[in-house]
Amino acid sequence: MTNHPVLNDVARALFEPVVLGTLSTINPDGGPQVTLVAAFLDGDELVHFHRGWYQKLRNIERNPKVAFTIVPPADGLGTPGDLQPYLVVHGIARIQVGDAGPWSDRLLDLVEATLPPEASFERPEMPADGGWTTHITPTKIVGVGPWMS
Amino acid sequence: MTNHPVLNDVARALFEPVVLGTLSTINPDGGPQVTLVAAFLDGDELVHFHRGWYQKLRNIERNPKVAFTIVPPADGLGTPGDLQPYLVVHGIARIQVGDAGPWSDRLLDLVEATLPPEASFERPEMPADGGWTTHITPTKIVGVGPWMS
Repeated sequence: MTNHPVLNDVARALFEPVVLGTLSTINPDGGPQVTLVAAFLDGDELVHFHRGWYQKLRNIERNPKVAFTIVPPADGLGTPGDLQPYLVVHGIARIQVGDAGPWSDRLLDLVEATLPPEASFERPEMPADGGWTTHITPTKIVGVGPWMS
Repeated sequence: MTNHPVLNDVARALFEPVVLGTLSTINPDGGPQVTLVAAFLDGDELVHFHRGWYQKLRNIERNPKVAFTIVPPADGLGTPGDLQPYLVVHGIARIQVGDAGPWSDRLLDLVEATLPPEASFERPEMPADGGWTTHITPTKIVGVGPWMS
């Protein structure tokens, strides 16, 4: 039993295995703040992790209302009858302390899998306190595309 | 003489001839609202047009602080040392009444030019009052990429 909207299968597929999208939060001055983040789906929640106590976390602590937006790659501009698809998940975010490690490992494994075998990169260190995760419970799903049906 | 940040040439090139990006505004409940829009550069301002008096216009009327975000197409997830590029233009928006027609024509011409010759689409009608445009004056430019140097 949930009283919040649930992403349909097409929407869920966008998150497999992870998706880059923009997170909009509210700055102290009441205006929007936007950053690009990698998000996972965990049950019905969106999850992303943080290695530092960034502005977006301070914003969420003050005002948990957020929007996460995915614009899947497409060529062209769309037409008035066939608009460019995108998905916006409005939601309420809660911050969890100390559990960023597994999510970071999961992302870094995926990144590594996309690189040529000879390529390598330095795995960034997780802070001693284990970083932070943000968990977003969807409250409203909007946009254009098959996830709206 | 300006007291606001100016987009550099790499950033300006993203807008040629037009760019799809997401506009974040502030809803009446104080949370973010996000929609995908086509934006032009007009001098140092970002311009987009509206055929209807949409939620984002009502939001801007109440709170003119906005953020416009471009995530250029890229393959992969980036790596910790080479992050996926994106551009966020924070700014103050003002709404202008009645002048959407020329901007709409400009976009529709561009859309038509991308379609195969045999393709056609219905040009949507502009409302009798001429629609609306939003003009965004940048106040802060953030993100990852060559537009940050």
